[in-house]
Amino acid sequence: MNDTIFSRIIRGEIPCHRVYEDDAVLAILDVFPLSPGHTLVIPKETAATLDQLSDASSAAIGRVLPRIARAVMAATGATAFNVLQNNGADAHQAIFHVHFHIIPKMEGRGLGIGWEPSKAEAADLKALGEKIARGVAAETQKG
Amino acid sequence: MNDTIFSRIIRGEIPCHRVYEDDAVLAILDVFPLSPGHTLVIPKETAATLDQLSDASSAAIGRVLPRIARAVMAATGATAFNVLQNNGADAHQAIFHVHFHIIPKMEGRGLGIGWEPSKAEAADLKALGEKIARGVAAETQKG
Repeated sequence: MNDTIFSRIIRGEIPCHRVYEDDAVLAILDVFPLSPGHTLVIPKETAATLDQLSDASSAAIGRVLPRIARAVMAATGATAFNVLQNNGADAHQAIFHVHFHIIPKMEGRGLGIGWEPSKAEAADLKALGEKIARGVAAETQKG
Repeated sequence: MNDTIFSRIIRGEIPCHRVYEDDAVLAILDVFPLSPGHTLVIPKETAATLDQLSDASSAAIGRVLPRIARAVMAATGATAFNVLQNNGADAHQAIFHVHFHIIPKMEGRGLGIGWEPSKAEAADLKALGEKIARGVAAETQKG
């Protein structure tokens, strides 16, 4: 098991600024925020990346994201925000326990986004889409 | 109601590269991908931003993110990925119907992340955390 700082916070061994908690989820303020109100929504289940997280824990996070986002916006006055969840060191993950960032965007502060899309070939999209669809179907049958 | 291109795709008026669908969720390939396998996970419920989405639809998305992520990784060979969900034009939202991006990170392609944190004052975190916590508690009692 990967015992990260989040496991220790969940167990109450390290203090945190808690904004929400239920049986499956803990939400806390990030102490190195990109903007005021930057919040981390963390499953209590120990999983390094989202693809390893159970459906139930992932659904439990999904369920509470809207209400936490509303409270963060109300408390900070922000009107725009990003939700970001990183998986793997190459994708900017630093703590290897799943966490969703809720990051208010305001006055130049918040998440910086680099967006360099390319136009995909229709044939490539068709082939890749079908391949992924078969994969999701197989995963869904397993579950 | 905001009738976006996603509403039209959900109604079947515009073709898409579908990778998953259930009663509450549609997942399709982005036709302007940041990297191969760039997937959009969209609630069928019409809501412009995540804070306006129902708990049930948001939970339904959360539930299927892990399986879709696994299938995207398996199909593309990527080992790292980001999940991003933007709310508001200032936060890089372009289509005003909630959508979660699953973006593989590989070979220099994928989401660019600008991360400029600041160290927050403990007293500020305490006050803001308590304010948000009261807000989430009020939202939770409403629900």
